[in-house]
Amino acid sequence: MPDQRPEHSAEQSPFELAEGDPFGPHTLPYGVFSTADEPARRRIGVRLGHHVLDVGALPAAVRPPHAELLGAPTLNPLLAAGRPVWREVRAALHTAVTDPAHRAEVAPLLHPLADVTLHLPFEVADYVDFYASEHHATNVGRIFRPDSAALTPNWKHLPIGYHGRSGTVVVTGTPVVRPNGQRKAPADAAPSFGPSARLDIEAEVGFVVGAGSAPNEPVGLNSFRDHVFGVCLVNDWSARDIQAWEYVPLGPFLGKSFATSVSAWITPLDALDEARTTPPARDFPLLPYLDDSAAEPGGIDLRIEVTLNGETISRPPFSAMYWTAAQQLAHMTVNGASLRTGDLFASGTVSGPEPDQLGCLLEVTQGKGPYLKDGDEVTLTAWAPGPDGARIGLGEVTGRILPAPEVRAGADATGHHAP
Amino acid sequence: MPDQRPEHSAEQSPFELAEGDPFGPHTLPYGVFSTADEPARRRIGVRLGHHVLDVGALPAAVRPPHAELLGAPTLNPLLAAGRPVWREVRAALHTAVTDPAHRAEVAPLLHPLADVTLHLPFEVADYVDFYASEHHATNVGRIFRPDSAALTPNWKHLPIGYHGRSGTVVVTGTPVVRPNGQRKAPADAAPSFGPSARLDIEAEVGFVVGAGSAPNEPVGLNSFRDHVFGVCLVNDWSARDIQAWEYVPLGPFLGKSFATSVSAWITPLDALDEARTTPPARDFPLLPYLDDSAAEPGGIDLRIEVTLNGETISRPPFSAMYWTAAQQLAHMTVNGASLRTGDLFASGTVSGPEPDQLGCLLEVTQGKGPYLKDGDEVTLTAWAPGPDGARIGLGEVTGRILPAPEVRAGADATGHHAP
Repeated sequence: MPDQRPEHSAEQSPFELAEGDPFGPHTLPYGVFSTADEPARRRIGVRLGHHVLDVGALPAAVRPPHAELLGAPTLNPLLAAGRPVWREVRAALHTAVTDPAHRAEVAPLLHPLADVTLHLPFEVADYVDFYASEHHATNVGRIFRPDSAALTPNWKHLPIGYHGRSGTVVVTGTPVVRPNGQRKAPADAAPSFGPSARLDIEAEVGFVVGAGSAPNEPVGLNSFRDHVFGVCLVNDWSARDIQAWEYVPLGPFLGKSFATSVSAWITPLDALDEARTTPPARDFPLLPYLDDSAAEPGGIDLRIEVTLNGETISRPPFSAMYWTAAQQLAHMTVNGASLRTGDLFASGTVSGPEPDQLGCLLEVTQGKGPYLKDGDEVTLTAWAPGPDGARIGLGEVTGRILPAPEVRAGADATGHHAP
Repeated sequence: MPDQRPEHSAEQSPFELAEGDPFGPHTLPYGVFSTADEPARRRIGVRLGHHVLDVGALPAAVRPPHAELLGAPTLNPLLAAGRPVWREVRAALHTAVTDPAHRAEVAPLLHPLADVTLHLPFEVADYVDFYASEHHATNVGRIFRPDSAALTPNWKHLPIGYHGRSGTVVVTGTPVVRPNGQRKAPADAAPSFGPSARLDIEAEVGFVVGAGSAPNEPVGLNSFRDHVFGVCLVNDWSARDIQAWEYVPLGPFLGKSFATSVSAWITPLDALDEARTTPPARDFPLLPYLDDSAAEPGGIDLRIEVTLNGETISRPPFSAMYWTAAQQLAHMTVNGASLRTGDLFASGTVSGPEPDQLGCLLEVTQGKGPYLKDGDEVTLTAWAPGPDGARIGLGEVTGRILPAPEVRAGADATGHHAP
């Protein structure tokens, strides 16, 4: 994994990228930024190395088609525009940053990353989280349900998923406050309340829906790319003690809903063509709407790295996922449910078969902990192979744990009565 | 239950309401409507009997304070404004429709309900569904998990809930298309795909969040009314066969996400003061943030009626719910999750202890069916006691079942390959 933040001298041209920089001209992920002098003005930017190109401000000579979509304060209008527009805009931006004839016009619009504030790049509509790694599901099943089969009987027939809280999706860098909640170990007589003692990460890959779909018109496997705009990293923070007590029978709720962190950058799916890969062989025949044996390869060879306080603790391989994002989208809509621009669906924890490829601390520590301490900082990064040996980066996701709020006395705040 | 649609002659004044009309001047629910001559112009309306008052068009003499909020095409700006504003606007509208001195100004702005189209009245942010009826949870547990205790060990310690799909919340009257999906009976060797054969209703009460909350600031029991604007009916359509196969371990997903129907009218919480009631005695001591023994009564004496093709099949009493909406809100935020304007949380199926008080067909038929047939129409209505013997109505929720779409051949549509 290359250093994603190489030393970068002020004199160096923003067009001269370090060897292996995953944010070269083949990546061009989209984000939303503001500058210190205009903190309230959110603008769409495209990342090039350690700079952000203010794409809404490009002058006529290099202005992409559909430039009005790039003047919005979120990516949503661009997302809604659909794949032909995404491709035209991307091609024009690629030219803008690679053609030496345009450097004079482009250079003044490149802001150093260190000088800007990055925002949640799109308005999240519905957030769905899947459970698509066989290794993760097996490991978790053994820990959470030691008396049953590790995989539930449905696991290899459908991509299991559930809806999460879209209102608490936050951009990378947002501190994550340790949640309070109910937890009860099997040996406890009654539940107790307090800060989660088993706060965990889940390293995931998120897919951002651009073009929506109509009700009762399922999105088949081969229509995936008409609807999904791009990819980000997701840390689906999880309070294992809260989750374990609450999740039967209707699934995770407060154990997950306090925060979900996503990249500030959405890497277009079109940047990942060279990284398409065939998913693992399926153990059971799939129903036709999920059968991708004749479809284009649905896996993505993304190499994820998880660091805890700067030390690498895992390298989960996204190529090992049993269920692909195209299968997830086909499943999610096969019942007639429509898609909206800004829908986000995440893969579920990415874990590979090896002990150094696990995507959450529950698995890394085999359920024994330690989990996250206050002050810990977790960062996810990822890259995929691109054209001509280039690396295609996903925007990093980082978050630092802050202590749980004190439960205030007085029923006004939490229903606790003052003593 | 009074007839909610009494005969209404064209000559009768819209101010003369039938005895027991649940939409008299003590109710004044808010909705969004359009008229045939301006179908694209959505306007906020308040219901009076069988008319809709175009409140954004009220002339100066009767214009409520904060009138700019009433000129929006959704309720969201009014919802966001907070309780002091809600009360001022409501008081002014009450005067406008009850003071005979204003009749000449108000009468021209009253459109017969039959002449308008009603729309989803607010933009749904997150949708959460609870499971708060002990009778329902017990009945369902016996049917879905016959070999275990009917109630899971957590049930009386916390209000179990999960997130649903906000993008498929639809307004009353929207047809409900039978979903396709996977289902597998225990005796089947493998899952099969096709139209749900066990399509059900769930009669619920929904609470609409007006004023949002900040992250990491739990909304305690006594702050409920500062955040919740009003109440509607919810039919949480459920495909039991799809749900039964998919829901372990992460909860309901496609069995519910195809459609959730809500009232066109949001009845303000302030209209339900006389209906507040004490919830059932609790069997276990509650943790302080849920302990409502010293709080204002959290139950609501709402009497729901479920009709199937015009015949009453059940009368679920909302007063029998074990968990209150205030407890649900306190629970939902105790982990630090924030609220947004437009968040919708529903009670879960309302079932009482008697056989004629059950809120879904799964319970009515003890898991044996019959369930909904194509063409069936289900309507939920409800009222609560109001001041001076008045009845306070919730907007009805009605939906008719359309046949499942044919699964088209060709991988483009659903991943099925053409034969």
